[in-house]
Amino acid sequence: MHELATELFPITRSITGPGVRQTLSRIAELLPGLVIHEVPTGTKVLDWTVPREWEINEARLTGPNGEVIADLADSNIHVLNYSSGVDTQIELSELQEHLHSLPDMPEAIPYVTSYYADNWGFCITDRARQTLAEGSYHAFIEARHSEGSLTYAELLIPGQSEQEVLISTYVCHPSLGNNELSGPVVTVALARWLMQQKSLRFSYRIVFAPETIGAITYIATNRDQLSDRTLGGINLTCIGDDGDWSYLASREGNHPLDRIASRVVQTFSRPRVYSYLDRGSDERHYGMPGVDVPMISLMRTKYGVYPEYHTSLDDLTVITPSGLQGGLNLVRQTIEGLESSRYFVTTVLGEPQLGKRGLYHRTHARTVSDVILARTHILAYSDGQHSVEDLAELLDLPTDEVEELVSELCEHGLLEESLPLKRSL
Amino acid sequence: MHELATELFPITRSITGPGVRQTLSRIAELLPGLVIHEVPTGTKVLDWTVPREWEINEARLTGPNGEVIADLADSNIHVLNYSSGVDTQIELSELQEHLHSLPDMPEAIPYVTSYYADNWGFCITDRARQTLAEGSYHAFIEARHSEGSLTYAELLIPGQSEQEVLISTYVCHPSLGNNELSGPVVTVALARWLMQQKSLRFSYRIVFAPETIGAITYIATNRDQLSDRTLGGINLTCIGDDGDWSYLASREGNHPLDRIASRVVQTFSRPRVYSYLDRGSDERHYGMPGVDVPMISLMRTKYGVYPEYHTSLDDLTVITPSGLQGGLNLVRQTIEGLESSRYFVTTVLGEPQLGKRGLYHRTHARTVSDVILARTHILAYSDGQHSVEDLAELLDLPTDEVEELVSELCEHGLLEESLPLKRSL
Amino acid sequence: MHELATELFPITRSITGPGVRQTLSRIAELLPGLVIHEVPTGTKVLDWTVPREWEINEARLTGPNGEVIADLADSNIHVLNYSSGVDTQIELSELQEHLHSLPDMPEAIPYVTSYYADNWGFCITDRARQTLAEGSYHAFIEARHSEGSLTYAELLIPGQSEQEVLISTYVCHPSLGNNELSGPVVTVALARWLMQQKSLRFSYRIVFAPETIGAITYIATNRDQLSDRTLGGINLTCIGDDGDWSYLASREGNHPLDRIASRVVQTFSRPRVYSYLDRGSDERHYGMPGVDVPMISLMRTKYGVYPEYHTSLDDLTVITPSGLQGGLNLVRQTIEGLESSRYFVTTVLGEPQLGKRGLYHRTHARTVSDVILARTHILAYSDGQHSVEDLAELLDLPTDEVEELVSELCEHGLLEESLPLKRSL
Repeated sequence: MHELATELFPITRSITGPGVRQTLSRIAELLPGLVIHEVPTGTKVLDWTVPREWEINEARLTGPNGEVIADLADSNIHVLNYSSGVDTQIELSELQEHLHSLPDMPEAIPYVTSYYADNWGFCITDRARQTLAEGSYHAFIEARHSEGSLTYAELLIPGQSEQEVLISTYVCHPSLGNNELSGPVVTVALARWLMQQKSLRFSYRIVFAPETIGAITYIATNRDQLSDRTLGGINLTCIGDDGDWSYLASREGNHPLDRIASRVVQTFSRPRVYSYLDRGSDERHYGMPGVDVPMISLMRTKYGVYPEYHTSLDDLTVITPSGLQGGLNLVRQTIEGLESSRYFVTTVLGEPQLGKRGLYHRTHARTVSDVILARTHILAYSDGQHSVEDLAELLDLPTDEVEELVSELCEHGLLEESLPLKRSL
Repeated sequence: MHELATELFPITRSITGPGVRQTLSRIAELLPGLVIHEVPTGTKVLDWTVPREWEINEARLTGPNGEVIADLADSNIHVLNYSSGVDTQIELSELQEHLHSLPDMPEAIPYVTSYYADNWGFCITDRARQTLAEGSYHAFIEARHSEGSLTYAELLIPGQSEQEVLISTYVCHPSLGNNELSGPVVTVALARWLMQQKSLRFSYRIVFAPETIGAITYIATNRDQLSDRTLGGINLTCIGDDGDWSYLASREGNHPLDRIASRVVQTFSRPRVYSYLDRGSDERHYGMPGVDVPMISLMRTKYGVYPEYHTSLDDLTVITPSGLQGGLNLVRQTIEGLESSRYFVTTVLGEPQLGKRGLYHRTHARTVSDVILARTHILAYSDGQHSVEDLAELLDLPTDEVEELVSELCEHGLLEESLPLKRSL
Repeated sequence: MHELATELFPITRSITGPGVRQTLSRIAELLPGLVIHEVPTGTKVLDWTVPREWEINEARLTGPNGEVIADLADSNIHVLNYSSGVDTQIELSELQEHLHSLPDMPEAIPYVTSYYADNWGFCITDRARQTLAEGSYHAFIEARHSEGSLTYAELLIPGQSEQEVLISTYVCHPSLGNNELSGPVVTVALARWLMQQKSLRFSYRIVFAPETIGAITYIATNRDQLSDRTLGGINLTCIGDDGDWSYLASREGNHPLDRIASRVVQTFSRPRVYSYLDRGSDERHYGMPGVDVPMISLMRTKYGVYPEYHTSLDDLTVITPSGLQGGLNLVRQTIEGLESSRYFVTTVLGEPQLGKRGLYHRTHARTVSDVILARTHILAYSDGQHSVEDLAELLDLPTDEVEELVSELCEHGLLEESLPLKRSL
């Protein structure tokens, strides 16, 4: 994963244009079956419009004495992302309005975007900015916005059920490590792992898209089926550092994914639980009323919480092989939790005859063994409303024990899996 | 308000007859658009029957030596309300059955009624009663019950929504201040205030009717539409003294009006919260199963709680200009609470593009400002189930700040008001 | 009851055959109207099949020196219930596999069954077992399994409502006192008591059947109407000793029978409350998803809790006249609780005119009497969702007082009984 991040790191991504396309092409090589969609500029997507493509080739800010202050070639976050083109001599005082730096992080170049307002600008360290002398500067950005399309990619990994889990991550940040490359590289690893699974109960639909506008576009182009086919979703971001293990709740907070992830995250050393009110990524779009895809987020250290966030310091040293692996583990365990979070119904009316299947005492004296008791309890509560974990809690038994007993009862044709049934009133 | 109370005070009201009619005529002068309804004697109204009209001209109880014990001309509560006529000489021992006094309040004339049983009687102070000498008394009541009608008045103040709030007060008590004249005079002032409002979200239907039989008659003649068109109601009584500020809950206790009034009442110096089990006025009819108009009551000091209640001591000194104004404030603030208790839904699917409306950062670096966060939170929870107050609570923000943000989002066409939507299961 | 238990004690019952039939014939003599059903061997009943009949005439285990180790004639639990026939000489070591004893209760013969596996065996005290010498034993059981039928009996005691309460008890254990004879003998007494009741609100359907397979057969042959016609059920077992008073909750635990029985059991000296997870009798079949007959169990000391359970020590000394009477009282009080647990709805819209029915003050002054207040409260909450006990709790009044007021309002035609209404959302 860290190698892939290293490979994708230098690409100058934005919400549209060759950077996204190049990134998704590389991912497509790793994920057979990935479908790349292009949605033309100008397409209305919900309340939004697909923007023009952005292409940038060269950009340089030169000082009065010809010294290079910032060069795209050195760092692609030196240029305001989605910046207009410019080629002008400009006095320092006027230039200041086009400069972005972080006074409280003097060594960091901030990552700044301006997708929906016409702007040009350079991002530099505040230390460099403080040394700028009066005089005339040459601001040169060879960038253009042109008709084209927005690019996103989608991979469906079918499972036994047509109910889908939506895995969402984004590909629009240029050379930034934890936010964002950890997201797509963990997602690629996750997708490969999912494809290797022999038997998935749920189907998994993995979406790589530019943040916000990509999610909006995806929702717009899939709105008819999205809510019906999707059980829930997981957004993956900031998932490659060695810090926290974080779970951010869905809007309602009581989805099966919430119950599972809140349990899983507690098994790690630095668990963090966030409310939907702390959200800030694509779960905000999927969770909107009317879209109604309950989506949790899984992260290592949440965006905004680690200091390097959205600066040049969020580089390939923030994400580590162990951090990425830890993030992948968090997601895998959550999915494993969902996969094993099964709901069952009995196939026969009444308590089945366990004896004829060798599941009861041959002779019956004074007590019923614990295992037989558990069998009858599981049968009595397999009403499509108690997951195996719910049963384990109810019976105060280890989950794997309940799981085994459920499997046994399924093998004997006495239980069958069901999608969760709504409780009748 | 106190002047109007003073003007209406001497009128000999009862559940029917010229007293009610005269009172409503005076109110009609103050409330253009007030419609006065007459429902004929004998009309079946739910389980009840509209009673005959009562007219009383003269009544006097004279002692053995010709001394006047009680005279209608002195106080119209000297006579049992709705009393039969009588003209008889009667011994003291027999007279006692027709006398009403309060041993524990020797200076007070009790207010006693006998609407549905054939009775005659006089109400006097207990002090006077104790001095009565043996001998023959002359009981003279020139009253008659005759076919006619029950009179009530109704004013609809239309708002933007056809959903109505029913304001109920009663006009059947004669010279009694807090219970009852505070009710109609505060209601008149409230109606005038409502009519002055430029823009009401809800419609207000104001009903002045004799207590109990008037409410029953109103329900009977409006039963088809009543429950559907009415969001809820407020009963106004005992709302002119300088004591408590009281809110009595609706039957279910969880109506928007309950939530608002329970908050509003706490902002006053002597808040009192009563259960529906403490009820005793027309909310008891509107709240019955099948009638299903959730109705709260707003009061200053509740009936039965202040000692002057239903006696000659509940006169124009119990209600005061400041007491009436305080009562009006309580109701106005509750209605203002309801008017501002808005439910919203988003007009676009998904999170709208705030940037193109100037509601987002032009350039985006490391943090989202609190106000933008609040905007996205409000959008995410505008599902028709969270009122602005609910949002304020959820976001831990001052209500007026949320209100402002909501208005702004409405101005941008991103939110629109909705009647509260039921939560789907 | 103890006499009937004594009379039924010697009969060699099993899940089928002459023992059940003889037992039910005797019960039929005591319960006119009892219908005895025979369901042929081989009939498919839910997941089960009606087994063959078992008949046993003679059985004896003789030692190497001709001494009798166990004889059916001494105790019918000396033979494995539903045992195959056998007539063989067998070495002690081999015989051990066919012997059942209780090392921790050396003086007790265990009661062991083998209904659904082909087995033969003898049950003896562990003390006797320890004295067995090496050598050849003669195992002789003259028993046979043959086509026939399963026998159960059913008695419907009709009440005013067609809603039925199912009383379930079982008749398949041979000479065992508390588990099982206490069940049928208390049920017989209960049925006779029910038949003597002048006016039952609910109908009672009493089922005597062999445990498990009898309940399964009953459910199978009545499945179409069972859930609809049945309000809930009570299973009676272990209800004749002088120990605890026990209530075991239904699957959901919130049925009217749960609320009543949990209150009733607390009025006894040693109340025990068990969860549905502690179940082990026919309530497990009736409570299964899809069968949906909420069934509680009422017991004195629960099966498995008293040491004599399922051994020869559970004889006619474990059950006592006072123990049986106590058990009967527990059931009767629960049924009386249900019978008096009435739900009402108002017959008129709005609050009725109490005055014209003499239920209100003739003249009204300052206060409404407590009894009139209670009347209006009862009317306001008679929405088919508050039982009289719920009303008593709500109004903080003694139940009998509420009951009286409800009766009075019914007499005046203002309330009428209703089956419990579901709360609308």
